[in-house]
Amino acid sequence: MAALVYWMDMAGVIVFALSGVILACRTRMDPFGMLVLAAVASIGGGTIRDLVLGVRPVFWVTDPTYLWVVLATVALSILGFHYIHRLTRTFLPVTDACGLALFTVIGTHKALMLGNAGVVAVLMGMMTGVAGGMLRDVLARRVPMVLRQEIYATASILGGTAYVLLLELQMNTVLSIGLALGLTLSLRLAAIYWQLSLPTFAWVVTPPPEPADTPPRDTAVSDAPAHVRRRPKVRVKLISPRTTRRRR
Amino acid sequence: MAALVYWMDMAGVIVFALSGVILACRTRMDPFGMLVLAAVASIGGGTIRDLVLGVRPVFWVTDPTYLWVVLATVALSILGFHYIHRLTRTFLPVTDACGLALFTVIGTHKALMLGNAGVVAVLMGMMTGVAGGMLRDVLARRVPMVLRQEIYATASILGGTAYVLLLELQMNTVLSIGLALGLTLSLRLAAIYWQLSLPTFAWVVTPPPEPADTPPRDTAVSDAPAHVRRRPKVRVKLISPRTTRRRR
Amino acid sequence: MAALVYWMDMAGVIVFALSGVILACRTRMDPFGMLVLAAVASIGGGTIRDLVLGVRPVFWVTDPTYLWVVLATVALSILGFHYIHRLTRTFLPVTDACGLALFTVIGTHKALMLGNAGVVAVLMGMMTGVAGGMLRDVLARRVPMVLRQEIYATASILGGTAYVLLLELQMNTVLSIGLALGLTLSLRLAAIYWQLSLPTFAWVVTPPPEPADTPPRDTAVSDAPAHVRRRPKVRVKLISPRTTRRRR
Repeated sequence: MAALVYWMDMAGVIVFALSGVILACRTRMDPFGMLVLAAVASIGGGTIRDLVLGVRPVFWVTDPTYLWVVLATVALSILGFHYIHRLTRTFLPVTDACGLALFTVIGTHKALMLGNAGVVAVLMGMMTGVAGGMLRDVLARRVPMVLRQEIYATASILGGTAYVLLLELQMNTVLSIGLALGLTLSLRLAAIYWQLSLPTFAWVVTPPPEPADTPPRDTAVSDAPAHVRRRPKVRVKLISPRTTRRRR
Repeated sequence: MAALVYWMDMAGVIVFALSGVILACRTRMDPFGMLVLAAVASIGGGTIRDLVLGVRPVFWVTDPTYLWVVLATVALSILGFHYIHRLTRTFLPVTDACGLALFTVIGTHKALMLGNAGVVAVLMGMMTGVAGGMLRDVLARRVPMVLRQEIYATASILGGTAYVLLLELQMNTVLSIGLALGLTLSLRLAAIYWQLSLPTFAWVVTPPPEPADTPPRDTAVSDAPAHVRRRPKVRVKLISPRTTRRRR
Repeated sequence: MAALVYWMDMAGVIVFALSGVILACRTRMDPFGMLVLAAVASIGGGTIRDLVLGVRPVFWVTDPTYLWVVLATVALSILGFHYIHRLTRTFLPVTDACGLALFTVIGTHKALMLGNAGVVAVLMGMMTGVAGGMLRDVLARRVPMVLRQEIYATASILGGTAYVLLLELQMNTVLSIGLALGLTLSLRLAAIYWQLSLPTFAWVVTPPPEPADTPPRDTAVSDAPAHVRRRPKVRVKLISPRTTRRRR
C-alpha cells in the first residue's frame, strides 16, 4: 500500500514537471525558469497540502528524492526537447489527466490517514491535484486553466468524493484507490475528448429596446424628456458551454 | 467570548464567500470556479494567519463547519443569483466592509491570545482581513484592490492598532472588540461613501522644456550639436487622490 | 556566527524592502501599498522557508524586530524619496544583488543547521533569496523578473551549491559564508554589468516554404489537391540570449 502510493506520487511528479517545462518553453523562459515552473507544478500542490494539514516539514524536505526526480525530468526534457515537443498534443493531455487523478487520490488518502473529516479530505485531494498547476499558471501570468476550462477540478472533486464514500462503505483500500483513480481519469479524459464543460454564469448586457413607434424625424413629438437616459439592462444569464466556447 | 468570536468568524466567511462568487461571475467562471474563488476569499486569510502563527492544522481542518458554510453560501447564491445581483451595488460593499472589520479584529485577537507582540498581532489582523481578497484578485488576474483603492487595509491597520492599545489600557475585552470593530467599519464605510484615499507617489515624466527662442527655420544656427538629445525629466511627485482618480 | 547571520539578515531585509517601495511607486500605489510590497519582498522568502522547513512560528513572529525594520525603511524612504529615486539606477541593482547573496547564504545555512540534505538546503537558499521578489512581482502583476531576466536565481543556486560543497569539505564556516557570498554577488553583478543571460528555449513558427516552381497563373496544373493546407511548421529552437534581447 505505502509503496503503491509512493510510486503513484513519483509518476504524478514527473508528469506535472513536464507540464511546467512545456509552459516555460511557451513563455520563453531560460532553463532555470523551466526548473522553477516544473518544481512549482509538481511539488506545489503537495506542499500546500502538507502545510495546511500540519505535516512538518513537508514531504520533499523529509525525502529529497522528489527534488532529484524533478531535476532529472527537467534535464532529460531539455536534452530530448524535440521529442517532447512532438508528444505535446497527443501524449501530454493524457498524462496530465493521469497526474491529476494520481494526486487527487493521494491527497485524499493522506488526509484521511491523518484522521480528518471526509469533506476536508476531498478538499485536500482537490488541492493536491489542482494547486500546483494553479501556481504555475499564476507565475506565468495565465488565468489558471482550472478556473476556466473544461471539467478539471470537478473531476477531482468527484473522484475524491467517490474514494471517501467507498472507504466509508468498508471497501478494500486498494480497490477503492483503483476505482477513484479510474473515475477521475475517465471523467477528465472524456472532458478533453468531447470538450465537456460546466455552464458558466455571466452578466449579460442587454441593449435598451428600440422604441417601437419611432415617429419620423421632423414631426417628432417626444413625450418623455430627452434627459431620461435609456440605460442598457444588465441581466445575469446562465451561458451554456457551447456558447461560451464559440465566443472565446 | 469564544462564541462571540466564532459567530463573527462565520459571518465574515459568508460575506467574503459572496464577494468571491460575484467576482467569479464577472470573469465568467463555471460553478467550480465560483467555489474556488469563494473558498480562497473566505478562508484564505485565516489559513495564512494560522500557518504563520504555527497553529496546526489550520482552523478549517480542525472544524470543517467552515467548509460547509462556504459550500452552502455558493449553492444558495447560485440558486438565488438574480437577487444577489441586484444587491451588488447597495448591499455588497457594506457587508464586505463588515467582513473586513470582523476578520481584522478576529485576527488581531487570535494572535494576541497566542501571546504575540502587538505589532505582530496588528499585522496578523491585517493579513486575516486582507489576504483572502488579495489571493482572490490575483487568481482572477486583477490588481488586488487593496493595493490601489480607497482606504481599505489602512482601516484594518488602524482598527487592529486600536484594539491592541485598548487591551493594553486594561479595557474590557468585549468592549474593545466592539470599539475596534466600529472604528474599522466606519473608516471603511466613510472611504466608500466619500471615496477617500491616501495620496500616492508616482514618477512623473516632464517633457523637456520647449526652447524659448526657436529661430526661424532657414536661418537656424544651432549652437548645440544636433545629437544632444533632450531627455524628458523624471520627477517623483506626490499625487493627490483627486488627481489620481480623475486620470483613471 | 549567530550575530553575523542576524546582521546579514537585517541588511537583506532593508535592501529588499527598498525594492518593494520602488516597485510600489512605479505602479502608483499609496503608502500602504508600499508597506505591503516592502513587507512581502523582504520577509516573504524567509516566511516560505520557515513554513516549509517546519520552523514555527516563523522568524518575524518570534522576533518582531524584523517588522519594525521594514516599517522604518518604508517610513524613511517616503521621507527621503527624492534621494532614493536618484539612487535607483546606480545604487539599487547593486544592493539588490547584495540582498540576493545574503538571503541565499542565510537560507542555505539555516536549512543545513536543521539537519536537512544538501539539495534541500540549496533549494531553500534559492527560495529565501528569490521568493520574496517573486511574490512582490506577482502582486504588482509583473512577470517575475526571475523567470525572464539575466542570470539571477542561477547565481543563487550556484552560490548555495558552493556553500554546501565547502562545508562538506570541512572548511571553516565563516570562510565558507564569505566565499559563497562573494560568488553569488559577483555572478549577479557580472550578469547585470554585461547583461549575461542563459539561452532560452522557444517554439519558433517557420512559415511553409514557398513552392519553388510556381507555374504561371493561367496554365496552372495543380498536382496536389487544393485542400491540402500548407501548415506552418513549428520547431523548437534554442535562442541565444542576444537574439532574445534584441526582439524584446
